[in-house]
Amino acid sequence: MQGELSSATIDEQETFTEDELHNGYRLACQAYPQSDVIIDVPPESLTTPQRLQLEGQQADIPVEPAIRIIPLEIPIPSITDLRSDFTRLKDAIGTTISQVEIEYPLLTSASPLLRDANWNIKAIFNQNKLISILPNQPPAVIAGLAVDVGTTKVAAYLVNLENGDTLAQAGMMNPQIAFGEDVISRISYAIAHPEDGETSGRKILQERIVEGLNKLIQTMLEDFHQKNTQHVEIVDAVVVGNTAMHHLFGGFPVQQLGMAPYVPAVSEAVNVPAREIGLQITKGGLVYLPPNIAGYVGADHVAMLLATLFQYRKELAYSNKTVVALDIGTNTEISLLHNRQIYSCSTASGPAFEGAHIQFGMRAAPGAIERVQISKDGQIHYKTIADQPPVGICGSGILDVIAEMYYANILDEKGMILNHHPRVRKTERLPEFILATEDQTGHHQAVVITRRDINEIQLAKGAIRAGIEILLKEANIQTQDIDEFIVAGAFGTYIDIRNAMRIGMFPTLPAEKVHQVGNAAGTGARYMLLSQFYRDLASRVANEIHYVELSNHPKFTEEFSKSLFFPKKDLP
Amino acid sequence: MQGELSSATIDEQETFTEDELHNGYRLACQAYPQSDVIIDVPPESLTTPQRLQLEGQQADIPVEPAIRIIPLEIPIPSITDLRSDFTRLKDAIGTTISQVEIEYPLLTSASPLLRDANWNIKAIFNQNKLISILPNQPPAVIAGLAVDVGTTKVAAYLVNLENGDTLAQAGMMNPQIAFGEDVISRISYAIAHPEDGETSGRKILQERIVEGLNKLIQTMLEDFHQKNTQHVEIVDAVVVGNTAMHHLFGGFPVQQLGMAPYVPAVSEAVNVPAREIGLQITKGGLVYLPPNIAGYVGADHVAMLLATLFQYRKELAYSNKTVVALDIGTNTEISLLHNRQIYSCSTASGPAFEGAHIQFGMRAAPGAIERVQISKDGQIHYKTIADQPPVGICGSGILDVIAEMYYANILDEKGMILNHHPRVRKTERLPEFILATEDQTGHHQAVVITRRDINEIQLAKGAIRAGIEILLKEANIQTQDIDEFIVAGAFGTYIDIRNAMRIGMFPTLPAEKVHQVGNAAGTGARYMLLSQFYRDLASRVANEIHYVELSNHPKFTEEFSKSLFFPKKDLP
Repeated sequence: MQGELSSATIDEQETFTEDELHNGYRLACQAYPQSDVIIDVPPESLTTPQRLQLEGQQADIPVEPAIRIIPLEIPIPSITDLRSDFTRLKDAIGTTISQVEIEYPLLTSASPLLRDANWNIKAIFNQNKLISILPNQPPAVIAGLAVDVGTTKVAAYLVNLENGDTLAQAGMMNPQIAFGEDVISRISYAIAHPEDGETSGRKILQERIVEGLNKLIQTMLEDFHQKNTQHVEIVDAVVVGNTAMHHLFGGFPVQQLGMAPYVPAVSEAVNVPAREIGLQITKGGLVYLPPNIAGYVGADHVAMLLATLFQYRKELAYSNKTVVALDIGTNTEISLLHNRQIYSCSTASGPAFEGAHIQFGMRAAPGAIERVQISKDGQIHYKTIADQPPVGICGSGILDVIAEMYYANILDEKGMILNHHPRVRKTERLPEFILATEDQTGHHQAVVITRRDINEIQLAKGAIRAGIEILLKEANIQTQDIDEFIVAGAFGTYIDIRNAMRIGMFPTLPAEKVHQVGNAAGTGARYMLLSQFYRDLASRVANEIHYVELSNHPKFTEEFSKSLFFPKKDLP
Repeated sequence: MQGELSSATIDEQETFTEDELHNGYRLACQAYPQSDVIIDVPPESLTTPQRLQLEGQQADIPVEPAIRIIPLEIPIPSITDLRSDFTRLKDAIGTTISQVEIEYPLLTSASPLLRDANWNIKAIFNQNKLISILPNQPPAVIAGLAVDVGTTKVAAYLVNLENGDTLAQAGMMNPQIAFGEDVISRISYAIAHPEDGETSGRKILQERIVEGLNKLIQTMLEDFHQKNTQHVEIVDAVVVGNTAMHHLFGGFPVQQLGMAPYVPAVSEAVNVPAREIGLQITKGGLVYLPPNIAGYVGADHVAMLLATLFQYRKELAYSNKTVVALDIGTNTEISLLHNRQIYSCSTASGPAFEGAHIQFGMRAAPGAIERVQISKDGQIHYKTIADQPPVGICGSGILDVIAEMYYANILDEKGMILNHHPRVRKTERLPEFILATEDQTGHHQAVVITRRDINEIQLAKGAIRAGIEILLKEANIQTQDIDEFIVAGAFGTYIDIRNAMRIGMFPTLPAEKVHQVGNAAGTGARYMLLSQFYRDLASRVANEIHYVELSNHPKFTEEFSKSLFFPKKDLP
């Protein structure tokens, strides 16, 4: 908090520590500004009320992780058996693992671990690398961590690596939000605070997300231990995210993501030692980061494709179907599978569906209008999150209201607000539509939809539709050739698909072809945690994808312009 | 410094910083004790005057290091070439390196490095691991570091990895001396200060040696830059030492080295990331630690064997000769090559040859008597280091004086001092021999040899000889079968071989069979730095060696008892 404020009240003094007060922590309900002030809302204050998308489609896949658990009873050193601790460990492993390598923390800790366990251990390998030694008794739960780091939200899953059970799950806001709401502003922060010892912007952003994940790990372990006293050893982690989140988590440079031609530092799958990052899993643990496809199509999209396009088989098995799969966000990643070839692109759909740039836009928090209907008699019905009095409108609500306004002839096909409806009021500038009146809302201001709001949504939905159309053209097919249309991600879960079609964001398709699959990236991350097969598949998919760069695509401008308007009203 | 002392003088106040004074730093020439005091002599105060053994036998070997230097001109990213930085780097490398892996520091730094170098680089690989990226222009000297970490002394070499030239060399006292003069006392220190966050004894000992090496690196770079302005990038390091020094440098547990049956934590060759240890070489650099053979036969002995037993060939080529090679120290490691089999042992020869447990014993510093002759007329001749007035006697001197006393009939074969010589004086206990009189010495006390001193040397030389005899027995051969007898190490360089034979420390052999080779461990370390072949050879040798444990050997006590006495006087 910067600027002049009223002094801290007794309540505030009781709420905060001296350090916190000194650092400018205040209660929004107690402090009065006495000048212009800059307010930072700490991420932990944002976390609780916001709806997080944790659930993804569940699917049973065989448990055959990259991690191998090898129980061993090792002969004790004696005057007639003077082998070194590692030689006797390796000899006990025999041919089970070839070309054994040892992660450094095991070199520094194995000797006492072996003796404390009385040489009766489980050796944990990540491929051929020894990453952990656990006593055989009492047996620990051997677990892995799957994480989907979104620009806004983070979802984490604690998974039993021996039977595939999800032991706990937890979500949070991405703590990097304090440094910028979107990818670009975080890259800018990193560029503006270049490498300079320990204080670079990149390092700070990395520390924040890692600290956050370490807290999530603690939360999940506490949850698990409410019902179970077994020690849990987290021996593996898979972290997915868009390319920028992937890079900032891994500590990789992002400058080149912020300037044309926007290439990733690394697109190959990498295993990063957890200790290099500070992620608190087993000492020698490695964090698997799946491949990225391009600067704006990241490992999270690969994970989503794994969870949606493939059925588990012992070989790379592209479906014969023609499938569109997309995840709507500030950048919307879209893939088209056709004729065993995947075409992918990223389209700049902007933050309007997250409530930004919309006058009464807000995130999916209590009081947000999330559903809207305008009945034939012109009556307006809406539903808010947690049934609170409305204070704003979130992404699914704004999509609804625009589709309903259009079908109720309050909007024309260009997005102009027409004057037919009693809820349309004139302003000094352009007319606006009153969605909730002053006496209905929580803050006693009318929640309105402006021409500018509608324009923002037109730009967003136009970008998404143009991306889909370009991919269809690349594959030389038509809308009717699509067998399945998969909408992944938090926003995609909550939207009314029919309304998305009515405004032309999606092509018009029979309802049975469309599937809303929830956090498919998180599901894909769990697949890669539980199955080496899916890691191999991820690398093949990322290699074989035909990436379509829209920014210099000859047809993009034409498709985008066409997609800005609303289509013919041919839906019920 | 602990205890009551006189206040700091003006000289001391001028010599030390306030911090140093606060930490108890004092000048020995200025401070007077006013109670019992404990004095720590900082290693830097020990360093300068002591003789260090840097030179080893030089030998030309082909330069074919583990490090590979690959010059690359990489296509610049563009809108039509969106490959990630690493994909384009890998593509440029092509099939030159298969299964490229990337050390973490390169993942976090390569993107700006590539751009700063305008994509015109040298990629440095350690086997298949990318460890460094250097700009092609201006060209840097690509160097490696070879280090022999002795319990007492450390020798380091900076070597050009492209042509094999030694660019600089430097030595120091092992800074761990402050924590104990010998291996056992340092292991005890580590055991007495167990793991407890950042302050464990093991971590402190590791930090001290690494800090010392980092200073040596700086010294060598400064030396080099006196004549040359080229940037030097140190991309590789080989560190050898006895098993305890190896473990303490690597950060490996040493508790099990301190209790029976004294097994190493690790005996295999390992590559440890330099950043894990804190060694200041290139960011992604790996430190190669050669294999150990046993708890008291370490990587330094392997290195010595590489430098002495093998000629360079494209395959493991044991000589047909029968060779004994040994390095005398507190523990003396001895190897016997016979019939293409190496037998090795370690024998507890004690610190007498380093001047410990000898009444006027001292290290090889100025004023130490290092050579002694007693002429036929009974006259005593000696030589001191730096020709200073004598103040004590170092290892080579005590070996000489005992051999000369024996051959002058001042000692009998059991080591009793006889009363024939004017320099033998009676004391309350046993008679002692006056090597330098009060008026000859620097401190105006006579330098004498006591019965107890002689006994210490008998124990030491007996242990060494017994080790040699046991190995001969294991190979079922006799002294006369020995074709070569190689004496390595600093002490071995300075001793009079004939005197070593006269007292029976070595078997009697023709002079032409005996070679004093200097710091062969350092030479072996340089071989492993310059040649992957020697690394492979090290692992094969360590695997194939027949290690003989003396502590439970049925013949050891008998051989040791026999070897305590002096042999027949059959040498000139």
